[in-house]
Amino acid sequence: MHDGKDRPPLGSELGFATVDHDRARRCGFPEVVFCQGKTPDDAATIAVEILTRADRVLLTRADAAHAKAVLARVPHARFHERARCITVAPSTHTASRGLVAVVAAGTADLPVADEAAVTLEIAGHRVERFTDVGVAGLHRLLAKVDAIRAANAIVAVAGMEGALPSVLAGLVDKPVIAVPTSVGYGASFGGLAALLAMLNSCAAGIAVVNIDNGFGAGYMAALINLRTTPTDDHPKRETR
Amino acid sequence: MHDGKDRPPLGSELGFATVDHDRARRCGFPEVVFCQGKTPDDAATIAVEILTRADRVLLTRADAAHAKAVLARVPHARFHERARCITVAPSTHTASRGLVAVVAAGTADLPVADEAAVTLEIAGHRVERFTDVGVAGLHRLLAKVDAIRAANAIVAVAGMEGALPSVLAGLVDKPVIAVPTSVGYGASFGGLAALLAMLNSCAAGIAVVNIDNGFGAGYMAALINLRTTPTDDHPKRETR
Amino acid sequence: MHDGKDRPPLGSELGFATVDHDRARRCGFPEVVFCQGKTPDDAATIAVEILTRADRVLLTRADAAHAKAVLARVPHARFHERARCITVAPSTHTASRGLVAVVAAGTADLPVADEAAVTLEIAGHRVERFTDVGVAGLHRLLAKVDAIRAANAIVAVAGMEGALPSVLAGLVDKPVIAVPTSVGYGASFGGLAALLAMLNSCAAGIAVVNIDNGFGAGYMAALINLRTTPTDDHPKRETR
Amino acid sequence: MHDGKDRPPLGSELGFATVDHDRARRCGFPEVVFCQGKTPDDAATIAVEILTRADRVLLTRADAAHAKAVLARVPHARFHERARCITVAPSTHTASRGLVAVVAAGTADLPVADEAAVTLEIAGHRVERFTDVGVAGLHRLLAKVDAIRAANAIVAVAGMEGALPSVLAGLVDKPVIAVPTSVGYGASFGGLAALLAMLNSCAAGIAVVNIDNGFGAGYMAALINLRTTPTDDHPKRETR
Amino acid sequence: MHDGKDRPPLGSELGFATVDHDRARRCGFPEVVFCQGKTPDDAATIAVEILTRADRVLLTRADAAHAKAVLARVPHARFHERARCITVAPSTHTASRGLVAVVAAGTADLPVADEAAVTLEIAGHRVERFTDVGVAGLHRLLAKVDAIRAANAIVAVAGMEGALPSVLAGLVDKPVIAVPTSVGYGASFGGLAALLAMLNSCAAGIAVVNIDNGFGAGYMAALINLRTTPTDDHPKRETR
Amino acid sequence: MHDGKDRPPLGSELGFATVDHDRARRCGFPEVVFCQGKTPDDAATIAVEILTRADRVLLTRADAAHAKAVLARVPHARFHERARCITVAPSTHTASRGLVAVVAAGTADLPVADEAAVTLEIAGHRVERFTDVGVAGLHRLLAKVDAIRAANAIVAVAGMEGALPSVLAGLVDKPVIAVPTSVGYGASFGGLAALLAMLNSCAAGIAVVNIDNGFGAGYMAALINLRTTPTDDHPKRETR
Amino acid sequence: MHDGKDRPPLGSELGFATVDHDRARRCGFPEVVFCQGKTPDDAATIAVEILTRADRVLLTRADAAHAKAVLARVPHARFHERARCITVAPSTHTASRGLVAVVAAGTADLPVADEAAVTLEIAGHRVERFTDVGVAGLHRLLAKVDAIRAANAIVAVAGMEGALPSVLAGLVDKPVIAVPTSVGYGASFGGLAALLAMLNSCAAGIAVVNIDNGFGAGYMAALINLRTTPTDDHPKRETR
Amino acid sequence: MHDGKDRPPLGSELGFATVDHDRARRCGFPEVVFCQGKTPDDAATIAVEILTRADRVLLTRADAAHAKAVLARVPHARFHERARCITVAPSTHTASRGLVAVVAAGTADLPVADEAAVTLEIAGHRVERFTDVGVAGLHRLLAKVDAIRAANAIVAVAGMEGALPSVLAGLVDKPVIAVPTSVGYGASFGGLAALLAMLNSCAAGIAVVNIDNGFGAGYMAALINLRTTPTDDHPKRETR
Repeated sequence: MHDGKDRPPLGSELGFATVDHDRARRCGFPEVVFCQGKTPDDAATIAVEILTRADRVLLTRADAAHAKAVLARVPHARFHERARCITVAPSTHTASRGLVAVVAAGTADLPVADEAAVTLEIAGHRVERFTDVGVAGLHRLLAKVDAIRAANAIVAVAGMEGALPSVLAGLVDKPVIAVPTSVGYGASFGGLAALLAMLNSCAAGIAVVNIDNGFGAGYMAALINLRTTPTDDHPKRETR
Repeated sequence: MHDGKDRPPLGSELGFATVDHDRARRCGFPEVVFCQGKTPDDAATIAVEILTRADRVLLTRADAAHAKAVLARVPHARFHERARCITVAPSTHTASRGLVAVVAAGTADLPVADEAAVTLEIAGHRVERFTDVGVAGLHRLLAKVDAIRAANAIVAVAGMEGALPSVLAGLVDKPVIAVPTSVGYGASFGGLAALLAMLNSCAAGIAVVNIDNGFGAGYMAALINLRTTPTDDHPKRETR
Repeated sequence: MHDGKDRPPLGSELGFATVDHDRARRCGFPEVVFCQGKTPDDAATIAVEILTRADRVLLTRADAAHAKAVLARVPHARFHERARCITVAPSTHTASRGLVAVVAAGTADLPVADEAAVTLEIAGHRVERFTDVGVAGLHRLLAKVDAIRAANAIVAVAGMEGALPSVLAGLVDKPVIAVPTSVGYGASFGGLAALLAMLNSCAAGIAVVNIDNGFGAGYMAALINLRTTPTDDHPKRETR
Repeated sequence: MHDGKDRPPLGSELGFATVDHDRARRCGFPEVVFCQGKTPDDAATIAVEILTRADRVLLTRADAAHAKAVLARVPHARFHERARCITVAPSTHTASRGLVAVVAAGTADLPVADEAAVTLEIAGHRVERFTDVGVAGLHRLLAKVDAIRAANAIVAVAGMEGALPSVLAGLVDKPVIAVPTSVGYGASFGGLAALLAMLNSCAAGIAVVNIDNGFGAGYMAALINLRTTPTDDHPKRETR
Repeated sequence: MHDGKDRPPLGSELGFATVDHDRARRCGFPEVVFCQGKTPDDAATIAVEILTRADRVLLTRADAAHAKAVLARVPHARFHERARCITVAPSTHTASRGLVAVVAAGTADLPVADEAAVTLEIAGHRVERFTDVGVAGLHRLLAKVDAIRAANAIVAVAGMEGALPSVLAGLVDKPVIAVPTSVGYGASFGGLAALLAMLNSCAAGIAVVNIDNGFGAGYMAALINLRTTPTDDHPKRETR
Repeated sequence: MHDGKDRPPLGSELGFATVDHDRARRCGFPEVVFCQGKTPDDAATIAVEILTRADRVLLTRADAAHAKAVLARVPHARFHERARCITVAPSTHTASRGLVAVVAAGTADLPVADEAAVTLEIAGHRVERFTDVGVAGLHRLLAKVDAIRAANAIVAVAGMEGALPSVLAGLVDKPVIAVPTSVGYGASFGGLAALLAMLNSCAAGIAVVNIDNGFGAGYMAALINLRTTPTDDHPKRETR
Repeated sequence: MHDGKDRPPLGSELGFATVDHDRARRCGFPEVVFCQGKTPDDAATIAVEILTRADRVLLTRADAAHAKAVLARVPHARFHERARCITVAPSTHTASRGLVAVVAAGTADLPVADEAAVTLEIAGHRVERFTDVGVAGLHRLLAKVDAIRAANAIVAVAGMEGALPSVLAGLVDKPVIAVPTSVGYGASFGGLAALLAMLNSCAAGIAVVNIDNGFGAGYMAALINLRTTPTDDHPKRETR
Repeated sequence: MHDGKDRPPLGSELGFATVDHDRARRCGFPEVVFCQGKTPDDAATIAVEILTRADRVLLTRADAAHAKAVLARVPHARFHERARCITVAPSTHTASRGLVAVVAAGTADLPVADEAAVTLEIAGHRVERFTDVGVAGLHRLLAKVDAIRAANAIVAVAGMEGALPSVLAGLVDKPVIAVPTSVGYGASFGGLAALLAMLNSCAAGIAVVNIDNGFGAGYMAALINLRTTPTDDHPKRETR
C-alpha cells in the first residue's frame, strides 16, 4: 500500500484544513476556497496561506463578511458581489485563452452565470456573456446564436423548465455545460425540474453540473478550453 | 347491492357500471369508455348500451382484443391502432369545427398525439398534425410555426426534456395544452421530467395534463375550441 | 458584454434586462414583470420603460417595497396587496370581454386566486370570484354552480387535497384551469399533493398550471376567453 | 433453529411460520393468512393448521393456485376471485353486526373494495356496497348519500385523484376509512397521488390505509363497528 | 341534481369566509377554525360569529396573538399553548363520553398529542394521556398496555421511525388512529419516514392521518367513540 | 503519484473481469462473486479462477442456471436456493467463530435473512436464526430476546414498516445491522418505507445496509464478530 | 406476556419525561438527553435527575442556552460547541477502551464527526480523528490509511457525493459506520445524495446511520468496540 | 425571426420521420437513429435514407431484430451487441483523432461504456477502454491512472454509489464526462443514487449525462476532443 513517505509534505496543515499547494500543477487550475460554512477569518487565513506559494486564488460562495476579511489582509483582492466570489490575481493577469460563452436564460440566473464567468476569467479564459435569452423569447436567442457559436465551449444557465441547453445544443456544434438553477417556484422543487430537463435533453452535446453550481460549470469549461485549438480572433480583454 | 329503486333512473345500470347518457348534453362531449382494466366483453357491452341512446362513442386505451369485441357487435366501429382508440360515429360525421393543432416532438410521442387527435375528431373538431418538430432541430419547428398559429388551440406532446410547449407558447398566441409523455429513459422517471418542465415553463399560456393523457388534452382542446369564433378558412375534412 | 449593435433593436436594452415591446402584439397580452428576485428599483425601471411604448403593464410577485418604488414613478399604478400584483392601466380601461370564473376552495387560497383575477382584469376580461366552496362543504359549491357555469372559462384554485377542479369539471362544460396551491401542511409537500390530484383527475376538461401560479392560470384563461363567442349578457364592470 | 422448549407453546410451529391461535381472542378477529409470496401448499397448510383450533379463517392476496390448494383440503372454502380472497366459515355464519358501507369510486377500484367487504363479512359485519360513484359524476354519489349515511362506518375506495373520501366526509357524520388504489396512470405514481390527496383532505373524519389495502380498511372498520351501538334496523343477510 | 333552493341560508357571509352553522348538527362536532394563515382579528371575528348561534368553538393552529385577540372578545376562552388550540365552551361542559387513549412516543410529540386531546375534550370525550412510551423502551409501553386497552379508541402519535402504532395494534383490540409527526431529522424528511412506516404497518387495525394532524386524529377518534357502547367505568373528569 | 510498479500482479486478468486474489488477506473475507447480470459461464469461470489460489468462494444473487454452471465445474459447490447463494468451501470447514443472530420479521423476509446467514457461515461465523418475530406479535419476539441477546452481533431483517430493529435495539446491548427488505406493497415503494424507518430509529445501536442486501449485512456482522471476545459457549456446528 | 409487576420502578417520573436509570446497565451506555425541542430548563432538570443515580450523562443537539442552563446546575459539565454536545463525567474518567477512528471528508463535516467522537469518549473509548481526507484529494487519504487501519472500528463522515466510506472500506478490514451529512447544495437534497451513495456502496463492510447522526454512529461504534479484543497499543489519552 | 425561406429543403420527409441531412455539417457528427420504440423496418428505412447522402450512420438502443433488418439492406453494417449499437462506415474509416478514455467501474457497466466507445469511434475518435476499476479496489484504478491521464477527455461510467468520477477527477486534469448507470438494486432507484452522487461530486471537472446514456457521453466527449490540440502520440487504430 502507498505510504506517502518519499514525497514532499502534502500541504500546509492549518489545523482546520489542509491546503493543497500542489493542486494547481496537478489539475491546471488555481486553488479554490469554498466559503459557505467557513467563518470570514478562516476563509481569509486559508487564502493568505495559499498566496504564500501561489499568485492567485478564487473564493466562491463568499458573502460581504468574507470579502471584508479577505480585503483586510489582501488589499488587491476583488469582490464580485453578484457572483458571490472573491478573486486575487496579479495585476498583469489577462484572460488570454480561447473564448467561452456564458449564456443565462433570465436575469434571475445571473448570479450563477457570473460565478461561472469569474471562475473562467481567474483561470485566464476569455468569456462572453449572453443574458435574457430564454426559450420563451426565441428571437432573442436566435439573434445571438452566431456569436455564441464562435466560442469553444458554452455554459448554459437556466432555471424553471431548463430548456435553454436543449435548444442551444441543437443550434451549435460546441460542448454545452448545462447549469440548472434553483430559480422558479412551486413544482420546480429547488431546481429539480430544470435539472431533470437538462439530463433528459433530446439534443446531444450536453452535460450537466449540480443545481446552481456555476463554479463547477466554469471549471469544466476551463478544462475543455485549455487545450482547444483556437478557432477565433476576438481581441483579448483584461480582467482581474 | 344498493338498488336505488325509489329514485328516477340515473342512467342504465349494467351491474358493473352505470352508463351516464346525460353526459353528452351536460358536458358537450360524447360518452367515453376507458378500456384499460376492463375485459373486452365489458367494454363492448358498455359501448353497445351507450349506442342505444347516442349516435357515437369513444373508447380509449383499447387494445386489439377490445377492438375485436367491439367490432363483432358494432361493425362500423373503427380501431385506431396507434392511438389505442375505438370510435363509433355516424357515416355522415364530419369534423367541421375550428382547427386544433396537435404537435408532437418526436415519432415516439405519436401514440399520445394520435389519442388527442382522435378524441378531437370524434367530437367534430378539425385537427392538423405536426410531427418530429422537437426543439433540438429548431428549424423544423420554425418552418411550421405559421401553420400552427392558425389553429384555435394547440395540443403539444413531448417526452424527454419536455421543452416543446415552452418554445411554442413563446411563438404563438393561442392556448397550449401540454402533454408530457413517458418517452425517455433514465432520469425521465416515466415522464416526470417532462411533466415538471411543462409545469415550470417560463412561457405563459400553457396548461398541463397527466403524463400520456392524450385524451385529456384532446378533450380540453375541444372545450376551448367549441365556442371559439372561427378565425380561419381551412377546408373541412371528413373523419369517422 | 455582447452588444448586438449591428442588428436591429430587439427591444430596449436596460443592461440587466431586455424589454420586449413586441410581446403584446405577438401574444395578445400586456408585458408582465416578474418582481421576485428583482430590486424595487429594477422593477420600477422596467415598468417605466415598458410604459414608454405601452399604455399598461402588470407586475406580479410584488411586495410593498416594489409597490412603493413603482408608485413613486407611476402615480396611477395600483397595488393589489393580497394578489401581490401591481397594475398600471389607462383610466378608461374596462374589463369588457366575456366572463371568467375564478373559484377558490378556501380563504387561504385567495392570494393565488386574486393573482389570477388581477391578471385577467388587466387584460380586459370580466371576472367573477367564488370563494370558500371547498369540497368538504359541497352544498356551498352546489349553490354556486349555475353562476359558475355561465363563465367561458373557469380558474379553480385549491390546496390540500386539490379536489375542487375534479368536482367542478363534472358539473360544468367549460374548460377548467386548475391551480394547486401550497396551502396545507405535512404530506401536502408544498402543494405536491394538490398538484398530483389535479393531474390525475377522473374528470375530463381540466388542465393544470404550476403550484401557486395564479398568473399562469389567468393568462391561460385569458387566451381561451379572447376568441370565445359571448354566450352571456352580464353587465360589464370597470376595473383598473 | 431456536427451540424455545422451556416456555409454554406460543402457537403451532410449522417450521416456516408460527400460527397464533390466540389472536382471535386477543384482537377480536379471525386469523388471517397473507398469501402473496407464499406457495399454494404453504398457504393451505397454514389454513388447515388454523382450522384445527378455530372455525374460520381468511386468506388474502390469493390467486387461483392458492384457491385450488386450499379447496383440495377444505372443500367448504370459498374463493372470492375479484377480491383475491379465500374464506372458510361455518355454514351457520351470518353477518349480523351493524352495517358498514363500502364505497368504490370506479369499477376499476372494485377488487380493493371487495377485499374490504369480504374481510368485514367473514368477521360477521353486514356490508352494503356502493359502486361507480366517483366525484366526476356527483349526482350519482348524491343519490346514494342517505343510504351511505345509515352505516356505522364507511370504507371509501378510490384511485386517480382520490377525492371521494373528502367529498363523502363532508356529507356524512360517520368515520371514513379511506383506501387509495393504484388505479390510474402517469403521475398517479402507483397510487401515490390518491394517497396524498386522502391524507391532505380538507374534510375531517378521515383516516387512511395503505394503497390497495382493502383488508386493512375492512379490519379497521370491523374494529370500529364491533362496539358501535346499533342505530339501524336493516334485515340481516347471510354470507359465507 | 341538488338545487339548494328549499333550505335555510348556508351560513353567515363574513366577506372573507362563510361560517357554516349547520356543521355541528350535520357532522356531530363543534365548528372549528383553522387559524394558520388567518390574522388574529379574522380568527376572533369568525369565532364570535360562530358563538352567536353555538355554545362552543375550537380554534386550531393558534399562536399567542390569536389567543390574545380571541380572549379580548371572549374572556372565558382558554388557550392551550402546547396544543396551539383555543377552546370556548360553557362552564358546565363535561367530558362524559367513553374513554379515548392518546399515546405519544416521545416528549417531542406532545404538541400533536395535545391537539388531539383538546379536540376530543371540547367534543365531550374523556381522554387519558400516555407519554414517553416509544418502542426503544418497550418496558415503559408494556407497563401501560392494560390501561390503554381500556379505551374505546386509541390515538397513537410518533415521529422518527413511527413504530408505536404497529406495536400497539398488536397488543390491543381497539382501533388505532396513527399520527405521524415531523419530529426527527435527516432522512425523516419532515415526517415522511413515520408516515410511510404507519401506512405499511404489519399490524392490522391502524389508519393514518396527515403528518402532525392531531386535530384530524382527535376528530376521527371522536366519531368512532360517539356511538361506541360503553365498556368501562372510569370516573368522569371535567374539562373546559 | 502511485505507479504500482513494485508490487505483485494485481490479480488475474480474465478479459471481462479482474480477480483480486489479495482481497481475502486484505479484508479478512473470501472473494465474492455477484452473479446478477453475469452469464452462468462467466460466473463459473470467475469462481474457478478464484479457486486456483483460494480454498473457498461465495457467489451471491445466483439463480439455478448459475448453480448448474458452477456445479458442473466444482462438484462440491453447494446451492442455497432460497438465499440465492452458491458456496464452495473445504470439507473441513466449520463455523467456529462467535455467535451472530439473524432475525427475520416475517417468512417473506427469509431469502434476505438466509443470504446474510450463508455469508456469515462461509466466513466461519456461527449463526442462529430467529424467524416470524415481527412487532405485531410482540410476545413471539419477547420469548426469544434472551437467546438473541447471547449473540455478539445481530442482523435484523424486516420489510413493511421496518420496526423490528428499533424494538430489538431497545432490548439488547449488541450492535444491530438492520436490513430493510422490499417485502410489502403500495406505499412501501420497494422497501423505501422500511429503509427510512430503520434510518430514523429512536433506538441507538443500529446501522443500516441497502434494501434486500443480506450479503452486506452478513459481511458487516462478520467484521464485527471477527475480533469480538467470546462471551458464550454454544457448541460449534459444522456448515459448508 | 410481560407484565412488569416484579421489577423495580421503571424510572423517575418528571411529568414531562420518564428517566430510565436502568438503561446504562441494560445497553452498556450512559443515559443520553436529546436537547433539540427541549427547553434549556427541561434539559438541565433531566440531566440533574440522571446524575442522582449515575456518574455521567451525555446531552446531544445542545445549543449555548442548553449549555448555560446545565452548567448553572452542574459546574463540572463541559460544552463541546462544535459537536453541539454537553458531557458530564467524573474527573477520573479516562478513555481507555480500544481505538475508534473518526474520519471526516471535509471541514464542513466536522460538527457531525465531533458528535461521534464526543459520544465515544464519554463512553470510555479512545478516538483518533482524521480530517480533510475527501476522495477528491486521494493522496491525503492514502497517507492516513495505515493509521486508520489500526482502529477497531471506523466512523466515516461525508456529505456531497458521500464516497469516502466506499473508498475506505476497500482499503481496510474493519467495520465502517458511514454517516452522511447534509453538507452540500442543489441536488444533495439535504444529504440524500450522500445517504444513497453510502447505502449503494460497491464495497462491503459498511453500514449507514441517519443523515447528520454523529451520535448514532458513535454509539454503534462503541457497541462494536466494547467487546473487541485489543489489537493495538496506542497510549491512552484522557478526556472529560 | 427565422423564416426558413432561403434555405434548401429541411430534410427528407419519410412520413413517420424527417431525416436531417444537414446535421452532420451543423453539429460535426454523423446522423444518429435512436431505435428504441421504432420497428426494425422503420429503423432500417431511416438508415438507408441517411446513407443516400452520407457515408456513415450510427443506430443506438438497437436489438438483434433491428440489426437483422439493417444488415439485410446494408450488408457492411456492424452490430455491436453489448453496446446495442449498429454502425455503418466506409471501409477506409479510421479512428484518427486524439484519444478519449472510457472507464467503467464494474463489468456490469460495460454495455453503457461500450455505447460511449462505439459512438466515439464512428465519429473518428481513438478510444482506450479501462474496466473493473471501481473505487472499492482502489489499487486497480491507481495502476491505470497514468494511462487514463494521457487522454484528452474521460468518460467515467459507474452504477451503485457512483464514486468513480469523483476519484478520477481528483487524479487527472482532463474533463470527466460522468455516466451513472442503472446497475445496482434496492435504494439505487434505477441509477438515481449514482446520478446524485456524480452531480454532488466534491471534485471539480465533472459534468453528468443521463442514466445509462453512453451515447450522450460519447457525443459530448467527441465534441470536446474534436478541436483539442493533440498531446499524445499513441498509434492510431482502425475501427469500423
